[in-house]
Order: sequence, then structure tokens, then C-alpha cells
Amino acid sequence: MTDRSHFDGQYTTSWDKALAKRTERMKGSIIRELLKLTMQPDIISFGGGLPAPELFPVRDFREACDWILTHDAESVLQYGTTEGYPPLKDYLVEAMHKYDVPAERDNVLLVNGSQQALDLLGKVFIDEGDEIVTCRPTYLGAIQAWNVYGPKFVTVPLDDDGMRMDELEQVLTAHPKAKFIYVLPNFHNPAGTTLTLERRYRLVELAAKHGAFIIEDDPYGELRFEGEDLIPICALHKENAVYISTFSKTLAPGLRLGWIVAPKAVIAKFVQAKQGSDLNTSTLVQYMAHDICSRGLIKPHVKKIREVYRERRNVMLQAMEEHFPPGVTWTRPQGGLFLWVRMPEQIDAEELLKVAIEEKVAFVPGNVFYPEGTDGRSCMRLNFSFCQPDVIREGIRRLGQAIKREMGLA
Amino acid sequence: MTDRSHFDGQYTTSWDKALAKRTERMKGSIIRELLKLTMQPDIISFGGGLPAPELFPVRDFREACDWILTHDAESVLQYGTTEGYPPLKDYLVEAMHKYDVPAERDNVLLVNGSQQALDLLGKVFIDEGDEIVTCRPTYLGAIQAWNVYGPKFVTVPLDDDGMRMDELEQVLTAHPKAKFIYVLPNFHNPAGTTLTLERRYRLVELAAKHGAFIIEDDPYGELRFEGEDLIPICALHKENAVYISTFSKTLAPGLRLGWIVAPKAVIAKFVQAKQGSDLNTSTLVQYMAHDICSRGLIKPHVKKIREVYRERRNVMLQAMEEHFPPGVTWTRPQGGLFLWVRMPEQIDAEELLKVAIEEKVAFVPGNVFYPEGTDGRSCMRLNFSFCQPDVIREGIRRLGQAIKREMGLA
Repeated sequence: MTDRSHFDGQYTTSWDKALAKRTERMKGSIIRELLKLTMQPDIISFGGGLPAPELFPVRDFREACDWILTHDAESVLQYGTTEGYPPLKDYLVEAMHKYDVPAERDNVLLVNGSQQALDLLGKVFIDEGDEIVTCRPTYLGAIQAWNVYGPKFVTVPLDDDGMRMDELEQVLTAHPKAKFIYVLPNFHNPAGTTLTLERRYRLVELAAKHGAFIIEDDPYGELRFEGEDLIPICALHKENAVYISTFSKTLAPGLRLGWIVAPKAVIAKFVQAKQGSDLNTSTLVQYMAHDICSRGLIKPHVKKIREVYRERRNVMLQAMEEHFPPGVTWTRPQGGLFLWVRMPEQIDAEELLKVAIEEKVAFVPGNVFYPEGTDGRSCMRLNFSFCQPDVIREGIRRLGQAIKREMGLA
Repeated sequence: MTDRSHFDGQYTTSWDKALAKRTERMKGSIIRELLKLTMQPDIISFGGGLPAPELFPVRDFREACDWILTHDAESVLQYGTTEGYPPLKDYLVEAMHKYDVPAERDNVLLVNGSQQALDLLGKVFIDEGDEIVTCRPTYLGAIQAWNVYGPKFVTVPLDDDGMRMDELEQVLTAHPKAKFIYVLPNFHNPAGTTLTLERRYRLVELAAKHGAFIIEDDPYGELRFEGEDLIPICALHKENAVYISTFSKTLAPGLRLGWIVAPKAVIAKFVQAKQGSDLNTSTLVQYMAHDICSRGLIKPHVKKIREVYRERRNVMLQAMEEHFPPGVTWTRPQGGLFLWVRMPEQIDAEELLKVAIEEKVAFVPGNVFYPEGTDGRSCMRLNFSFCQPDVIREGIRRLGQAIKREMGLA
């Protein structure tokens, strides 16, 4: 094919002129680019947010696939409704009731992982210039999904008990038009913190007073290692909350399957937006997930994940005690996949990462989790779900060495 | 759960105020709503665009699933790169070469069906008020995907040879800032027409002269019943075309798997947009499709689909000859899933649909395929892929009866 190279010929000028203005606000995810760099097998990566692949319920998936393709192939492989596969919605309705979330079938929409939920939220609710409230730091995927729609991020700091409510009150007073408050109440990404029960009530009170609605992002809620489940915010603030979650951390992220719970009229708007976005979530994937869920296999599986991740968290916490120099502090998450490390101010985590990669270990520098991208420079996010205990110990040893080098202690 | 009803309580005011302005342009798909109405088993529906479910290669899927979950489960169920599964991209690159489309791996992006390609095109290229050129009629899903981004649709009529180039020239002269030209060159949805070779060359010439790029939507290209394949437009217009296609009509729509071919710098923009939209297309689905493709199973399967659909088209054409009254004309597609019926002007297809449903048969009224929604009122789209031959004969008999009633002939 001699002229193949022409395909990338003199396009630059014309394409560049054709781009929509919103593309100026699009950035590739630093994490995803970083992940590519750290794919080298000799690097220990605490950078991604990957579940432990050795725990995937492979046999359950194989059985599910065999069953649905034997008994229901013509539906499994056909187009489905945009709203989602009704029996899976019914399963989710029941599952949510146990967490006191009042929902019926038409309060639920199946989506391509909770990232699509974030995109649909932006599409349906964010006009350019709208103010929205998030923690600082907050989930990078939300920043990325919403930046396209051009909001102004108004941020509230968090401490070990999650978003600070005194600061939120000030922010809502100063920004009376803020449209919504985005929270990750359980095992926050990246901070690893959990919003206390008292603060949940206070959050709902403040949101109601200021007429803002709440987006509750809960990908890790099932992965609690200790303590009691806390009531979801959408159960406290029924009329004015959108709840989103995913099967990525309980079954497998390769499915790309998540869901939204919201008032029916809001779901109807999401359905319209999703029709234009991709018609429907893979029918095959929804049937597989439903088969596994309805056979009761997800609960024992999640129990196993919790045990394994709890051990890995413990190993990481212990190794940090042993290998990190004084002046470095970290959160102690009650669940989830991540913890957050604060280092002395003179340390720049992006610079540290270069040293860390020399030491064959990787993490995500903290500043990417700040919508402005300027704070959090001396912080980092560590993932403890992906690596096995021995690897975690060795990785933290290497990381401690890198920090000491960067601090001039080694 | 006594307070469940609260979940849809007094939300209306606050939510409605919170909606982004673009939601005013979102409409549910009439086709998808219609499909729900016509799900009743005694209605014969020519309304949807569904592949024949009895042809789905179920055994191939079962074998694929078993193989990939046995040999590669930890990758199959994990997150993947946004760009897509590299071996599947390589397969597509080779497959496209046979159609003279020059592409390398980095010219390809896997997406959730070609509907997501349309959404990403809108996200990356359409600013509010931008002029874009489409046929009238054109694919409803494109109208729906792009309306959200607020373009002005400038439309060009088509005849039995596809988009009219004399009219396109006038349109491009009158609208010199038109950003792109959207075409479905093979077995057009809804019109069933194919753009002739001569017009393909002319289209490329006009697009180049006026500095517009071309979006070539080709979901049905593989389903040619007769005649020779015509060169894809992106092979004639390498630097300035985006090609999109899908596995929905060759394997199964339940996968939600399609792809985009474009210059590398354009693909890079789509990748950024897709990261924020849903991170990546289901890894599981991509591995399944790749397994079936790489085993060489797709070609004989497509051959079978072509034979079955050719027969169904023939049966529908013959039945229309027999049952439709004089004054009704239709296209004779060389492939694909749809044909287009023009009725005398006094017939309003939406009114006819009510009579047709009484006669237990359904179709899609023509006006929904016009961005303005006003033309095409006496036209309708018929699908011939879904129903078996006997059902097609009976459905066309019923539809002929409905038309005659509406024309006062019965």
C-alpha cells in the first residue's frame, strides 16, 4: 500500500481549524499515560486503580456466558433498551434497599461504568460557566468528564473525616448559584477518607438550605474492611441526590458496567442523553452481570475481595511506618483501594516520581487530583489493591528510599 | 419501605432549574419509543433496524468466551487502554486495507458502537451554531447525537444514486463555513440508496475545494447483495475523512462495538474525549470480537447474512408490487437493511401509522429522518432484515391494506 502515508498527510491545518472550542479543555489523563510508562515488568506500580486480577471470578463469568448464550442468545446479542436490562435493574433496586436507598426500577439506569455516569451528569447539568462544588483533592475522572462542559470548580478541603462542612458552608454562601456538590463519601479517591455520619447529615442540611443537589459517587462502598456501613447520602436527601456506582470493583472493570440512581424525571433526561451517546449499554455484559448477581455469587466474592484488600492495606500501612522518614503522614482508609500520603512541603511529587521510577516504583502525584492542578504538589496517591503483599513491602521500601533521596536523607 | 415515594417527591422545580440548556435540544428517539409500542407479539414490525436474531453466531460467541476466559482472563476482565485492544485494531487495519482504506494501528479507535463515534464527532468538532451538511433524509442517530451540540443542519436532497452533487455544490457555495459533510454511501439509512462511483469522486472534489471534511458512516458496507463494492470515500480523501463502522450488523449489536478510522492526530483527540466519556470500550467485548474475527469466522457468517437479507429484500419488493396501490414508489437497495417508500402527497405517514397499527403492522414515518422534522411526511422507512419471508409477505399485505384505507381505496 504505497500511499498509506498519505493518510496522515497535510491534514494538520484544516483539522485544527475544525476542532470545537471545548477541545481546548480536554486533556489526556496523566494517570493513564503514566500507567503506560510503568507497564515495564520491573516497576512496582502503586499508580493505577486496578482491582487485583487474580481475584476476578473467572469461573462465574464462564458459566454465566455459557448459560445466557445457551438459553437467551437472541436477546443477549440484540439491541436492548437504553434504560437497561430490567432484571438487572430489579436486582440493583433490591440491593440498594439494603442500604436504605429508596428506589424503583425506573429510578435506575445502566451505564458503561461510572465514568459514563459522570459524562451524562455533565451533559445534562453543566452549562459553561456553571459553578460546581468538589472536594480538593477529588476524583480525576470527574474533573476530566466535566472539564469538557466548561464549569468553574469551586473546591472544599477535606480532612480525615472527609469534606469539611465548615468550609462547605462558607463556599455555598460565597457561591449561592453553585449547581451541585460532588462527594465520594466512602473511601475517597484519592484521599482514602470516609465522610462521617454527622457530616453526612450536615451536608444534606447545607445542600437543602442552598438549593444545590448532591452527586454521590460510591464505587467502593461495598469494600469496607472495618466498622459499620454509613447511610448513603441519597437515602438522606432523596429528592435532591444522584447516586452512582459500578461493578468495576466488585466484579470486573473489563465489563464497563455501572449504574445511576436518581428521581425518575432525572433518569428520563439521562436516558435521552445516553440514546445520543451510545444507544444502550452492552446487552451481553448486562446479562452476564445479572446472571452472576442472581445466582448469589457476588456477595461471597466481595467478602473475599474485602479480606484480601484489608490485608494489603495493613501491609502497606505497616511498611510505610517502617520505611518512610519522619515528616511524612498518610490516611488510614477503612476500605477501598487508595490512601493519600502527605510529604514535607519542600518535596515536589512530580520530581519525586522521577527518582521513584529510577528506584523502580511508581505512584500518582497529588496535584492531578486538584481541578486547578496547583495544590497537592507534595502529596501522592497510593493504590494497595493491585500488588500482592510481598510486592507492596518491596515497593514501599523503594518508595521510602526515593523519598529519603529527595529529602537529602539518603 | 414506607418513604420510597419520597424519592420522586418535590424535585421538579429544583431539577428543572438545574438542567443545562443543551437538554432543551434533546429528544428521545421516536423509533425507540415506537419499538416499545410495537413489541406486542401480534404486530409485525418493519420499524426497527434489528438484525435477524436467528442468524447470530451463537456457537462462535460461546467458544470465544470460553477461550478468552480460559487463556487470558486477567486481561479480559481488567481495564484496557482507551485506544482499544491492539490485536483487534490490527485485524481492522488489515480488513480495511482490502477496501483500499489506508490505515495503521494508530488510525483506529474502538468505540461503543458507531453511535458513540457520532457522539465523539460532535464533542470534538461541533461548536454551537456550526453548520454541518447532511442528506435529507439522514440517519436519525446522527441527528440525535449532534443536536446536543447545537449545530445548524444544512441539508442536501438525495435521489436513487445517493446525495445529489449539483445540490451539494450549491449548498457548499451558499454555506462556505460548513464544517463537514456527513454521508452514508452504502445502502443509506433510511433511503436504501448507494452513492455512485462518479458521485464519490465528485463529493471528494467538492469537499476539497470548499475545505470541508467528510464523515463516512458505513455500518452496512459488508452487506452488499449484488454488484461490485465501490471504493470508500476515505480511500479517495485520505487526509480529510473520518470513517466509522460497526460490528452490530456483521456480528451482533448486543456487543456495542464499533470503530473509527481517521488521521492519527484526530484519533488522539477522540481518545481524549472518550477517556472522559467512559475510559474504554469493554475489554471483554473486544476480546470476544477479536477471537471470532481472528479465527476467520466472520466472513462465512457475513456471506450467510447477505444471502438471507437478499432473499428478504426480494420478498419485500415483490410483495410491495403485489399489495401497494398505484402512486406508491420505493427504492431498490443493493444491500443493507432498509428501503424507503414514497406515497402520494396527501398521505401523512404519522396518521397512516395509526391505521397500520390497527392492521397490526408498523414502520417508521419519514419525517423523523429530516433534521427539521418537516419534510418526508408522506414517506416511510421499512426494515427487511428482521422478519422472516412469510412474515414480510403478510406484513406488506397488511401495510398495503392500511395505505389503501388511508387513500380511500379500501
